[in-house]
Amino acid sequence: ASHATAQRTLAEAFALQSPSMEATAPSVGAGANGSLAAAARAQVGPPTNPMATALLTDQYQFSMAYAYWKAGKHADHAVFDLYFRKNPFGGEFTVFAGLEECIKFIANFKFTEDEISFLQSVMPMCEDAFFDYLRGIDCSDVEVYSIPEGSVVFPKVPLMRVEGPVAVVQLLETPFVNLINYASLVTTNAARHRHVAGKSKVLMEFGLRRAQGPDGAISASKYCFMGGFDATSNVLAGHLFGIPLRGTHSHAYVSSYMSLDEIPDRTLRNKDGSKICKDFVSLVKEWLCKIQAADSLRNVFGDTNQSELAAFASYALAFPSSFLALVDTYDVMRSGIPNFCAVALALHDLGYKASGIRLDSGDLAYLSIETRKVFHAIEKEFNIPGFGKMVITASNDLNEETIDALNKQGHEVDAFGIGTYLVTCYSQAALGCVFKLVEINSRPRIKLSEDVAKVSIPCKKRCFRLYGKEGYPLVDIMIRESEPSPKAGERILCRHPFLESKRAYVVPQHVEELLHCYWPGSSDKPRAELPPLLKIRSRCMQQLEKLRPDHIRRLNPTPYKVSVSAKLYEFIHYLWLNEAPVGELQ
Amino acid sequence: ASHATAQRTLAEAFALQSPSMEATAPSVGAGANGSLAAAARAQVGPPTNPMATALLTDQYQFSMAYAYWKAGKHADHAVFDLYFRKNPFGGEFTVFAGLEECIKFIANFKFTEDEISFLQSVMPMCEDAFFDYLRGIDCSDVEVYSIPEGSVVFPKVPLMRVEGPVAVVQLLETPFVNLINYASLVTTNAARHRHVAGKSKVLMEFGLRRAQGPDGAISASKYCFMGGFDATSNVLAGHLFGIPLRGTHSHAYVSSYMSLDEIPDRTLRNKDGSKICKDFVSLVKEWLCKIQAADSLRNVFGDTNQSELAAFASYALAFPSSFLALVDTYDVMRSGIPNFCAVALALHDLGYKASGIRLDSGDLAYLSIETRKVFHAIEKEFNIPGFGKMVITASNDLNEETIDALNKQGHEVDAFGIGTYLVTCYSQAALGCVFKLVEINSRPRIKLSEDVAKVSIPCKKRCFRLYGKEGYPLVDIMIRESEPSPKAGERILCRHPFLESKRAYVVPQHVEELLHCYWPGSSDKPRAELPPLLKIRSRCMQQLEKLRPDHIRRLNPTPYKVSVSAKLYEFIHYLWLNEAPVGELQ
Repeated sequence: ASHATAQRTLAEAFALQSPSMEATAPSVGAGANGSLAAAARAQVGPPTNPMATALLTDQYQFSMAYAYWKAGKHADHAVFDLYFRKNPFGGEFTVFAGLEECIKFIANFKFTEDEISFLQSVMPMCEDAFFDYLRGIDCSDVEVYSIPEGSVVFPKVPLMRVEGPVAVVQLLETPFVNLINYASLVTTNAARHRHVAGKSKVLMEFGLRRAQGPDGAISASKYCFMGGFDATSNVLAGHLFGIPLRGTHSHAYVSSYMSLDEIPDRTLRNKDGSKICKDFVSLVKEWLCKIQAADSLRNVFGDTNQSELAAFASYALAFPSSFLALVDTYDVMRSGIPNFCAVALALHDLGYKASGIRLDSGDLAYLSIETRKVFHAIEKEFNIPGFGKMVITASNDLNEETIDALNKQGHEVDAFGIGTYLVTCYSQAALGCVFKLVEINSRPRIKLSEDVAKVSIPCKKRCFRLYGKEGYPLVDIMIRESEPSPKAGERILCRHPFLESKRAYVVPQHVEELLHCYWPGSSDKPRAELPPLLKIRSRCMQQLEKLRPDHIRRLNPTPYKVSVSAKLYEFIHYLWLNEAPVGELQ
Repeated sequence: ASHATAQRTLAEAFALQSPSMEATAPSVGAGANGSLAAAARAQVGPPTNPMATALLTDQYQFSMAYAYWKAGKHADHAVFDLYFRKNPFGGEFTVFAGLEECIKFIANFKFTEDEISFLQSVMPMCEDAFFDYLRGIDCSDVEVYSIPEGSVVFPKVPLMRVEGPVAVVQLLETPFVNLINYASLVTTNAARHRHVAGKSKVLMEFGLRRAQGPDGAISASKYCFMGGFDATSNVLAGHLFGIPLRGTHSHAYVSSYMSLDEIPDRTLRNKDGSKICKDFVSLVKEWLCKIQAADSLRNVFGDTNQSELAAFASYALAFPSSFLALVDTYDVMRSGIPNFCAVALALHDLGYKASGIRLDSGDLAYLSIETRKVFHAIEKEFNIPGFGKMVITASNDLNEETIDALNKQGHEVDAFGIGTYLVTCYSQAALGCVFKLVEINSRPRIKLSEDVAKVSIPCKKRCFRLYGKEGYPLVDIMIRESEPSPKAGERILCRHPFLESKRAYVVPQHVEELLHCYWPGSSDKPRAELPPLLKIRSRCMQQLEKLRPDHIRRLNPTPYKVSVSAKLYEFIHYLWLNEAPVGELQ
């Protein structure tokens, strides 16, 4: 069957996309900017997920391409805006992400013969010459203008403007929206988690196992880092993007041990290499007795679980310099904490400093506070400076709400490991980015709807962010391409796109143009760089800091204003009246 | 930077996984079943997503692997159960999916040198010999027992039992849970949508643009088909899995036209090839006049939108045999429907039969009923048999609830296109599958928790489904491996795993063993086949039909019973008491 072949050849096809094999790939250059595009393609590299190929689109894009082609309309110059209508998670801001993957996608956009054959098989009614047309297309005639990745963005303002031959740009609609929607959603979710956790906490993304498929997980790791997380558990994401990795052991590791007899090699060299402890396990046992006998701790501890003690001791022998233990397999306060402390104290004797513990169940506020008390008591009892400051990590079904609740109750958690709710965006699993035609062959187009919020803003536009005296952004404004740009110090009327009464004069202190050329670029419109992930992450952090705090707060945030120029306002309403049929009440 | 190289070499590495290049891949065969595994690997092929590589796991799996290796424990024989604790979407059933991808994953499980170097760079504290160990491992010593894909499954019963060297099986935990969680969740969601829509409706998955990343979309298409959908809009999924494709045109296509003058070639050959209509557009216009003049329709129609009429006529010229139009760009009843009918009637004159319409906004119950009335009126007015039965498709933010509401209101929709809510599993975006150690070196293990629902069921187990006289499944039962199987006609005591008072005697009419060997297989334990998608889909449909209806109904479904044998019950409670510390109230 053809689809079995497809699965097999998919893996082979990927090799062709690798820049290191660029030399053997067929040359592109069908469009006017052919050679430039080929160079740019080599520069940007292939999409992270090799499945992001030209077939990753909706069937109707091909139906439309054929209808356009049949009507000789396929090369009509179209302008599409990509935007969303509502901020997610009940908030008033969104972080834009996914741009780099879109640029990688179009840089490598080209149908293989295998893909053409497949399309022929599912569209047998189409003329052969149409498939020759598909064979020839790439994205060298497509232009992409975009807000930089990692920017804070708002509803209705185009995140991207994509221009080019209508049939080709239509084919890009679905993959672009796919690559932007989840990326922006999960980056925003991560930024919201960072906001509620505060700057001083360590945030780790632990979502691989619960994410929506392998690259639901891999993109989650990338974009959570972009949105302000510090690390991930996902090793492949670490490899692909250079994100710091974190992780210690699971409950299974603890329960895989039965007793201390299972540790064959008990020797451990001092950290400074000076001498060797011959029986680390006995040292641990001694410390456990001391802890149990200590006046300041006596009331807390009875017998501890020996499987757990063996697992901790064994783990410490493998990682003496970074010992971090999961303490809730049996009972946190009666077993996990004393066992951990015994091992940490034994390590201390040999010059090592344990890292801390992880809590994965129970009342995290209470347990973290009680654990901190024990750590402080041990610091005092045995005179171990710094023991009280041991890291406490928490990781049980956390989300914005639970972290907020922990903050209100008071807690002693230093680091949060967040999975399910973060990566699946559980509280709102989709962002509604759309891709709307705003102009064709220089004629503006509008999409009407009975729901005013769904009416599109027509025309090829330029977009600006106007800043006030205090440095905060005040309002975004869209203008027609032919209008002069707003200027710092000059008064401009900003109008709500649809509501006549909502308008305000603004004298911006500073004006920032939002859309930049990302593809393909030329001598007069240089291609904007795709910065490395770490730089995008910094941009995101800085943009959020620049925003007026009431736009970001969790409860009842203030909507940020989005406007159009007076000229664009007039034009929208002229076009609207022109297109809408006049009703007749019966 | 190393991660830049990783992104480049990822694409190259994929080529090695392709079965067609098997000959050049390094031989595996490290374990006892080496050659068998290599043959099986060639047979099952690579994972659908080439990113599903051995690095797609949590960092802590490698920390644990190292600690096991340091303690000489890495080859200990471990048994893990993969299961979930609660059915999703407030229901009482789940469909198990993702098995084939898991088997493909382990069949190709092997570290490349590039991956080993990366691991060395992030775990500099580990001894070199450990990386030699990693270089040598594959999954030839791992055994996978699983419920067949597409089966209806219930909480606590292992979906899979994975056995083998503890360090290797731990590395599989994260990818297996990742590959099963979303697959089972979205298949279940699809099955629920099918259940509420009824067997007679056509269900199409339209989720590519809103899914969580490219393979969130591709897996959604695969698993929605498995769960009972008929088609997808996702072309790549059609190519990879042979799923039927559907899709016509968008609002942008409609608004890309300004007037009928934009149609250069207006000729259309009769369906039977007998003659050529020279001006299809005029024919359409004539029909529009006739419709507007018709007594039975006069009250409904005034002037229609000419952009829309042009777009419809042009689209019909490209697809005369399968004309399906999106009718809500301007106004459904005042413009879309009369324009559609005019084009459909013109097509009818030339021997073609239009397919129907799609509604993407507004009150779908009302609009579909009004549209049906018009179709019937036209059938009668112009004597066109079958016109009344034209397909009405609906596709605006649909989900289980809205389809249920439509059913209650009454509607005339024949086909549903469902996207966002289906593929992102919006009402519950994650399933909580876990992977728990139940035995190591033949010693049963238990994971305790203050929450009884989280206590694991220890021991290597066999699982059975017991059927009653009416053919319905009555109860699933787990027994210790050493116990005799339940037999048809023999009375057996089924106990709730944790609650002493809940137990019942059952005399099964028929007994089905649930777990089968899927990897690697041997002469005495033959490897169960991985059936094609269509067969898995049928299995799913059949299993749901076999279930007692009250387990499936949307409101207050009855929980299906899951039990353990008397022996296993005794053993769980013996182990529980043994491991749990005795508390002390203060």
